[in-house]
Amino acid sequence: MVEPATDTKTATKLVPLLKDELDIVIPTIRNLDFLEMWRPFFEPYHLIIVQDGDPSKIIRVPDGFDYELYNRNDINKILGPKASCISFKDSACRCFGYMVSKKKYIFTIDDDCFVAKDPSGKAINALEQHIKNILSPSTPFFFNTLYDPYRGGADFVRGYPFSLREGVPTAVSHGLWLNIPDYDAPTQLVKPLERNTRYVDAVLTIPKGTLFPMCGMNLCFDRELIGPAMYFGLMGDGQPIGRYDDMWAGWCTKVICDHLGLGVKTGLPYIYHSKASNPFVNLKKEYKGIFWQEEIIPFFQAASLSKECTTVQKCYIELSKQVKEKLGKVDPYFDKLADAMVTWIEAWDELNPSEASSAKATNGKA
Amino acid sequence: MVEPATDTKTATKLVPLLKDELDIVIPTIRNLDFLEMWRPFFEPYHLIIVQDGDPSKIIRVPDGFDYELYNRNDINKILGPKASCISFKDSACRCFGYMVSKKKYIFTIDDDCFVAKDPSGKAINALEQHIKNILSPSTPFFFNTLYDPYRGGADFVRGYPFSLREGVPTAVSHGLWLNIPDYDAPTQLVKPLERNTRYVDAVLTIPKGTLFPMCGMNLCFDRELIGPAMYFGLMGDGQPIGRYDDMWAGWCTKVICDHLGLGVKTGLPYIYHSKASNPFVNLKKEYKGIFWQEEIIPFFQAASLSKECTTVQKCYIELSKQVKEKLGKVDPYFDKLADAMVTWIEAWDELNPSEASSAKATNGKA
Repeated sequence: MVEPATDTKTATKLVPLLKDELDIVIPTIRNLDFLEMWRPFFEPYHLIIVQDGDPSKIIRVPDGFDYELYNRNDINKILGPKASCISFKDSACRCFGYMVSKKKYIFTIDDDCFVAKDPSGKAINALEQHIKNILSPSTPFFFNTLYDPYRGGADFVRGYPFSLREGVPTAVSHGLWLNIPDYDAPTQLVKPLERNTRYVDAVLTIPKGTLFPMCGMNLCFDRELIGPAMYFGLMGDGQPIGRYDDMWAGWCTKVICDHLGLGVKTGLPYIYHSKASNPFVNLKKEYKGIFWQEEIIPFFQAASLSKECTTVQKCYIELSKQVKEKLGKVDPYFDKLADAMVTWIEAWDELNPSEASSAKATNGKA
Repeated sequence: MVEPATDTKTATKLVPLLKDELDIVIPTIRNLDFLEMWRPFFEPYHLIIVQDGDPSKIIRVPDGFDYELYNRNDINKILGPKASCISFKDSACRCFGYMVSKKKYIFTIDDDCFVAKDPSGKAINALEQHIKNILSPSTPFFFNTLYDPYRGGADFVRGYPFSLREGVPTAVSHGLWLNIPDYDAPTQLVKPLERNTRYVDAVLTIPKGTLFPMCGMNLCFDRELIGPAMYFGLMGDGQPIGRYDDMWAGWCTKVICDHLGLGVKTGLPYIYHSKASNPFVNLKKEYKGIFWQEEIIPFFQAASLSKECTTVQKCYIELSKQVKEKLGKVDPYFDKLADAMVTWIEAWDELNPSEASSAKATNGKA
């Protein structure tokens, strides 16, 4: 049986890495008492809290944390009609936080995720590990059998081409979960008692051309490199589907990272995921996705972006067209989603004007 | 500091899996005292020892092991002129053992590899783990973030397509090394003291389309599924290169596995690699490979096999033609190697006539 860390107060306080360059984005519908356990690790950072559901509800944030909070009214006010691209009554709303952040890096975590312990019993500073992952390069073009070659005590093995040893910039660090694994509803139903107790001490690059199921529970990314691709889609209220928000972002992100020569890492750090969501409720949210993913994944596996797609925004708009053309046939939902993808980019560029213009300028086609 | 297991006599003797269906192939130039430590795990199995170097030297095998031994004279006698495809004075000679085996599975190990311990201090039965890896399917078409979904306590995560959950047959299980990592000469020279102490408790499928540096030190494969691709090339005596035997086999094998829809796993089990080879000697053997791999790897990454390649033999012959055509320009060595690839397949089919004819029959084009 795995247990969460119950006393993190004694955790060594290191100099917080990237303190002024990283925002922590948390979608929630409740008081953020879970932050108490994260205090030694998160307190130096700025939080962006995206309140889902009833905007009149008051969300309590423990004292001492530096935060800004947005509820639905705020989102509507800031984005106006473009607020339609931000989901309601679904944790997909978190991507609004990515958009309003002004920092280079984002770490996002669910409010039912606690501090995990490593096999020696030490509380894991998940954020610190994500930062290590994202500040060291990725190796998407060839597999290294000793995992991340940039970790201490590891390197490239015999037969690894020397021309590839500089690696590429890492855009995404995908962390994992001890205790409750991130299973779909059918697997939850079949294995109600399964717990993840295996601590795998590895970080690895997901190879170019390979898609993966990206979970939004414990995720860090470089907003400047890949932010506009981290759209969590249309989920929840008024939509035919839920629990595919992070998957959607993961498919789009990976295709765009592959196109732009950016890296995606998975593995460490672990968080402790405390509570399985209700599998019956999940099944209702997921069941269309379970069918659709059989067509969506081959679509993304075959997707190819043109040479003109030199910025994330351009890649994303190009992808939205392909979604409309190819997935529109699967269900009218994808027409709506393709339109929302465009709205998302418009809203992103509106809130991040300097970035949008510099993206154009870099491209030399402004 | 990692240490090898020093007392394996007390290791629990389980019923040996696949006892009559697996051969252990060991290339060597010395007495096989290392087998003492492996006795509880290897004794039930048949060994094929390929003696390299001076055939008049007597190799001592500890009592109680069931083995057959081939020296250079035996190889020449059995293969006649085709013996030219088997390397001399290089551990690449081991692939002769794959050819004369009549079993479905091969495990091959170097004679400087000892029993490693897991983090709890228990001696690792490497062979048992390889068999588990190879008897469970692989998942090359989509990445599972919780690693091998077929292991106890793990499964496919949310977002993994259900249509892919049956997996594909596993053709290769690539194990790793504690203590001395498998580094090339430049890395050995730069990091003479680096030891691998990180036990990563994972097995994973190397995705389709991704190449990896396959090490022959601790390797298991399904001879019936992929055997004819496991040619370790022309190395050592009379050749311009060494220490690329397993790399060559790995590149060819992965391309053919991808084409035929077979899986390759890497990760557990670990063996304890006792002694770093001399980096100066290694540099001399490797240095051409260090240049050449910069062209060989893109060649294999781009290699594509036609639909007519429905057996490993056909794939391999097709690949030999592409090697001649594309790599022949890099160095005349690759012309010779391409010819040896053909000789290897001819010799394989001669020694394995029923397999060759069944391969043809399955293909319906005999």
